[in-house]
Amino acid sequence: MHLRVINPNTTASMTLLAGRAAAAAAPPGAVVDAVHPTMGPASIESHYEEALAVPGVLEQVAIGEREGVDGYVLACFGDPGLDAARELARGPVLGIAEAAMHAATMVGRRFSVVTTLGRTVGRARELVDRYGFAGACAGVHAVEIPVLALEDPRSGAREAVTERCRRAVVEDGADVVVLGCAGMAELCAHVSAEVGVPVVDGVAAATALVAALVGIGLRPGAGGEYAPPPPKPVAGLLAGFTVAPRVPAVSR
Amino acid sequence: MHLRVINPNTTASMTLLAGRAAAAAAPPGAVVDAVHPTMGPASIESHYEEALAVPGVLEQVAIGEREGVDGYVLACFGDPGLDAARELARGPVLGIAEAAMHAATMVGRRFSVVTTLGRTVGRARELVDRYGFAGACAGVHAVEIPVLALEDPRSGAREAVTERCRRAVVEDGADVVVLGCAGMAELCAHVSAEVGVPVVDGVAAATALVAALVGIGLRPGAGGEYAPPPPKPVAGLLAGFTVAPRVPAVSR
Amino acid sequence: MHLRVINPNTTASMTLLAGRAAAAAAPPGAVVDAVHPTMGPASIESHYEEALAVPGVLEQVAIGEREGVDGYVLACFGDPGLDAARELARGPVLGIAEAAMHAATMVGRRFSVVTTLGRTVGRARELVDRYGFAGACAGVHAVEIPVLALEDPRSGAREAVTERCRRAVVEDGADVVVLGCAGMAELCAHVSAEVGVPVVDGVAAATALVAALVGIGLRPGAGGEYAPPPPKPVAGLLAGFTVAPRVPAVSR
Amino acid sequence: MHLRVINPNTTASMTLLAGRAAAAAAPPGAVVDAVHPTMGPASIESHYEEALAVPGVLEQVAIGEREGVDGYVLACFGDPGLDAARELARGPVLGIAEAAMHAATMVGRRFSVVTTLGRTVGRARELVDRYGFAGACAGVHAVEIPVLALEDPRSGAREAVTERCRRAVVEDGADVVVLGCAGMAELCAHVSAEVGVPVVDGVAAATALVAALVGIGLRPGAGGEYAPPPPKPVAGLLAGFTVAPRVPAVSR
Amino acid sequence: MHLRVINPNTTASMTLLAGRAAAAAAPPGAVVDAVHPTMGPASIESHYEEALAVPGVLEQVAIGEREGVDGYVLACFGDPGLDAARELARGPVLGIAEAAMHAATMVGRRFSVVTTLGRTVGRARELVDRYGFAGACAGVHAVEIPVLALEDPRSGAREAVTERCRRAVVEDGADVVVLGCAGMAELCAHVSAEVGVPVVDGVAAATALVAALVGIGLRPGAGGEYAPPPPKPVAGLLAGFTVAPRVPAVSR
Amino acid sequence: MHLRVINPNTTASMTLLAGRAAAAAAPPGAVVDAVHPTMGPASIESHYEEALAVPGVLEQVAIGEREGVDGYVLACFGDPGLDAARELARGPVLGIAEAAMHAATMVGRRFSVVTTLGRTVGRARELVDRYGFAGACAGVHAVEIPVLALEDPRSGAREAVTERCRRAVVEDGADVVVLGCAGMAELCAHVSAEVGVPVVDGVAAATALVAALVGIGLRPGAGGEYAPPPPKPVAGLLAGFTVAPRVPAVSR
Repeated sequence: MHLRVINPNTTASMTLLAGRAAAAAAPPGAVVDAVHPTMGPASIESHYEEALAVPGVLEQVAIGEREGVDGYVLACFGDPGLDAARELARGPVLGIAEAAMHAATMVGRRFSVVTTLGRTVGRARELVDRYGFAGACAGVHAVEIPVLALEDPRSGAREAVTERCRRAVVEDGADVVVLGCAGMAELCAHVSAEVGVPVVDGVAAATALVAALVGIGLRPGAGGEYAPPPPKPVAGLLAGFTVAPRVPAVSR
Repeated sequence: MHLRVINPNTTASMTLLAGRAAAAAAPPGAVVDAVHPTMGPASIESHYEEALAVPGVLEQVAIGEREGVDGYVLACFGDPGLDAARELARGPVLGIAEAAMHAATMVGRRFSVVTTLGRTVGRARELVDRYGFAGACAGVHAVEIPVLALEDPRSGAREAVTERCRRAVVEDGADVVVLGCAGMAELCAHVSAEVGVPVVDGVAAATALVAALVGIGLRPGAGGEYAPPPPKPVAGLLAGFTVAPRVPAVSR
Repeated sequence: MHLRVINPNTTASMTLLAGRAAAAAAPPGAVVDAVHPTMGPASIESHYEEALAVPGVLEQVAIGEREGVDGYVLACFGDPGLDAARELARGPVLGIAEAAMHAATMVGRRFSVVTTLGRTVGRARELVDRYGFAGACAGVHAVEIPVLALEDPRSGAREAVTERCRRAVVEDGADVVVLGCAGMAELCAHVSAEVGVPVVDGVAAATALVAALVGIGLRPGAGGEYAPPPPKPVAGLLAGFTVAPRVPAVSR
Repeated sequence: MHLRVINPNTTASMTLLAGRAAAAAAPPGAVVDAVHPTMGPASIESHYEEALAVPGVLEQVAIGEREGVDGYVLACFGDPGLDAARELARGPVLGIAEAAMHAATMVGRRFSVVTTLGRTVGRARELVDRYGFAGACAGVHAVEIPVLALEDPRSGAREAVTERCRRAVVEDGADVVVLGCAGMAELCAHVSAEVGVPVVDGVAAATALVAALVGIGLRPGAGGEYAPPPPKPVAGLLAGFTVAPRVPAVSR
Repeated sequence: MHLRVINPNTTASMTLLAGRAAAAAAPPGAVVDAVHPTMGPASIESHYEEALAVPGVLEQVAIGEREGVDGYVLACFGDPGLDAARELARGPVLGIAEAAMHAATMVGRRFSVVTTLGRTVGRARELVDRYGFAGACAGVHAVEIPVLALEDPRSGAREAVTERCRRAVVEDGADVVVLGCAGMAELCAHVSAEVGVPVVDGVAAATALVAALVGIGLRPGAGGEYAPPPPKPVAGLLAGFTVAPRVPAVSR
Repeated sequence: MHLRVINPNTTASMTLLAGRAAAAAAPPGAVVDAVHPTMGPASIESHYEEALAVPGVLEQVAIGEREGVDGYVLACFGDPGLDAARELARGPVLGIAEAAMHAATMVGRRFSVVTTLGRTVGRARELVDRYGFAGACAGVHAVEIPVLALEDPRSGAREAVTERCRRAVVEDGADVVVLGCAGMAELCAHVSAEVGVPVVDGVAAATALVAALVGIGLRPGAGGEYAPPPPKPVAGLLAGFTVAPRVPAVSR
């Protein structure tokens, strides 16, 4: 089983971090690698950046399909390009927000999300609604630390995230906490030990769950909403994304 | 008041069509023009195409901001790039799905959507949920005619759309019908006359509603979720989308 | 285009206030006037008063129909008589609660409502649910100042409303605020400047949105739920409201 | 225990019918009477008629309060004036739609409503949502027989209602049926015997449930949303509804 | 009319308490008795205990059926075995959580629940959702006093429950409070007098409501989901629960 | 990793079937076994039977804990005893309905459930709601074949299930189908091949997902709702289930 983590931004250190978290979560025998796009923003903290990250995600899925990848993890908590990636991939694709919320509701009654910047809370709530977990979500909170500062020990991220998770348990009544950024993956064990409830890192959750789906042969249907996109010209700067006639049909 | 319709695909005839529909819907004194991106797919019938249309939409909003546009309409029923466009624009931005659903619920109890291909129904339902209209949506139906065939009289689109709307009224109990594609704009009067309930064209609805918002000075807040995206490098093919330090702050 | 604001209570100064707010919000070329009923309570702060305001609202719609009015605004945040008014009117009718909530969700993710008395909060929540905005409503709050005291500078309304809106932004995480009373219309600009998020006055929103609907020819269907009421005797004190055979059919 | 059924329309035969159904449903020792207003429409089949029925309902509650009535049933499936009546009454007030839906969900998983005219379906759905039963409501259907024709054997009401209930069980998967009009009360036993699932008549349900509430001393709180309406002048035709200072406070 | 309260735990003092509360709530002429199972836990404060209480509840329903009981109350706020009991009983069966929530929404807009231990809050929320009252529930709170300590004056239960109810009214905006344990029945009058809003004891509510259903002949349908369980062997320790062929059909 | 499938009924052939399906779904290196209780019904087709199956499920979890099992699958589509089992187990526990719905929403937009008897549809819908998938569930359908007949080739189960799944795809617009009984596990590949959309067997899904949770160390929190049940006597027939003081604390 060959699983691939796609870090949707172009910062290599985050790709390495996500790759480590995924490798630790994969089942025996799975090969896991991690990549990032050749194009797009250095981190994703706005709708604008998320939108610009998507073409690069799709480029990487197309590459993965040529290399026979069996399942994908999109390692950004906004789940950028998830539906489009499902149209390109033969195997299952999971976003880390999606996976973390599914996992959280399998082990607790109500989860809170602790994320980076307040401006991303709206997107997190939108995903909570989309995946059906509005009734299970007790709160979404931001620590106001930018994504790329999470790895910097001077940012105080470890303490801030731990403290915000602790408050969520007490004030929201959450019995699970979801970490709302791939860059928090390596805080998961620490926070879990500190706050006394299960804490979910989306990269680990998505890797383990996509491996589960691959293992039982579940993937989106080849017809219907997630069928390969129809052959059609794409103009201008993005012409390289043109879907040529017949190729998707053949490769699928 | 300067309003701009952005056709998210790159097909000029659809831009003209959307521009005509918007001009007819705008209030006295409003200047309305219609544009399409320099990049992206010829039409949008999959998640993949929608994702690839978004950078071009954002390019056009950035141009519009330099030209002093007061409000925008995104003329594709998937509302591609809506949240990101709100971060770039000083004035309000409405998608045609969003606007059509708001308008429909102001004149009726329950609406049905009639759209092009079945594979887009999932996205339409997702938007119904996001905008809060799950309780008001009686059905979403496809006529299985591609977007670019709608304008071709030989496609039978007029008859097929009319007939599907009629069935929606009878079988769903809908008292309003929403046309689920910008390319159906010029069918609106015909269908409405035939089916005996109000029929909403999203291009007209979005133009009229965005003009209303501009008229009373309502726009997303300059702080919070829709604040301008932070300055940050964008790599590779999309490097031209880099947000340089200070510029958004100054222009806002 | 002839728009009419109906102040559902019988206090002339509120009618003037609503008329001014509506006139400022209407598009170029629209004629806007404001009226109030000959019967009913001096202000609306209970279900009882709202119920007693409705016959007067319907009287005014009937008068408006004889005078060729194109669209109506019901300028009380309980939207009294909205559905019944739609049966009488040929054109669209919007309540200010309905319109304010629609407008708020077009420019933000989550809105809070700030209203007059705590006893009206239940009705406001009921309308939030009816219009589909339960997921978008972050809170409903009262300042405990009666409707007719809002205009009195000694009531402290300006300060109290501003302060409550500010708290709603911070505590609820709202990125839009809705003013929950027509009598707050002239506080809107002040509050908006103070709290730093868009603030929606329902009178302005309803006027602009109903003008938009009139402009594109959208109105409730002449059949179905909003068809003219059937001819039928009305007894006793309200006998003047009897619908005589044939008249509605002719006038429609 | 003194219970009063208020038929919100002015047709005496329906008052008698509702009174009979209520008397049969009341517990031992309860005194049940039935009244109708001195003003208002002959039957209620539109929002307009419902609005005009409300003042008469409130007149009857005010009379009932002077006579020491302990609990009220509003015998029209639109539950007209329910919240306002709760402000006037010392004891509990139930509408028949409300009561029927509560009772239905106490004995089955999913109910369908069978009502008179299609134009009233929207109101029925609105009440389903308000009372929290959207997830339990499998359908709302009309037989297109006017309210006042239900009692006429030549209308075919008995057969049409029975047949529509039978279809609801099969097609909706309902395991309870709610009759959506007080005028159907005497069809209840027949339909129930024919369709093989419990059938709920709202008049019986409301009478039994309001007696239950009276029996255990439950009524809306005297403060808060359902406090007596504040003293305030009511103008014009409805001046008789003016709440004079102090009287409600004293009587409560 | 013969009503029976089943205390699902095996503590006799709670059975007596529930029996007293039920007797006081029953209509004139009803015979009310109270029983508890021969098997099961001494109190119910976990899912494990609730699960183990269910066979005893079913044993008591089977006994009740042989004795001609007309309706049942399950006097534990987790409503243990409710659906299974409905399959065994000819008459209606109500849980006290179910009944309390129904009653609360008949007299107020939003209720809060005050219960015993925090670990039972998840179950209470689950029931809120199941019965359709998610929109009406303003909060669920625990006083962290075990069930069997409620009767002990030294536990401080009276003061703690009263205080928590008072806070729920202020902080949640609740206009009704539901007591979340049968063991709180005798606190109801005291708390209600102190907090100034209606307070619902589930035992009283369930008794009154089930009497109402019996009075009008409403019970789950004899076919469908609540039909008698099919004849089938039950093995091992629970062999005594085997349903023998034909008996249920005959007795029903 | 040691995973255990608990077949909640006492029919050994179903235990073997579930064990085979689970073994095929487990990741490399996992040890999977399957057991059934010493007590309880031969199959589960009613609420009564489900209730009586739960003590046996808990007996098996207690045995599993003594044997060091890492994760459990409850192989009945009603997910009997799920919450109670979580209190006893140190590792994660998944029901097959829960797991199948999670998996279905990871690969499609909307799923339909095809189950055995119509009387179980209510329970399936209740679980759909509990897990948050009401918006994603397009339908629940029964083939009216009893559980124990599924394995009998003469029952026509293969054809009936396949045909019902095919109809669900067409009529409901489902893009995934969930098989609603553990006894259908071996039909999964056949049906999937026939209907052209992914088909989910809950036993496989639960095994793969619980393995994923074990692999990343996720389990319900040891405090809160799923803490071990408190020490407390259990009376009568079930006295063997008594939780003795200190033992759970020690073993956890």
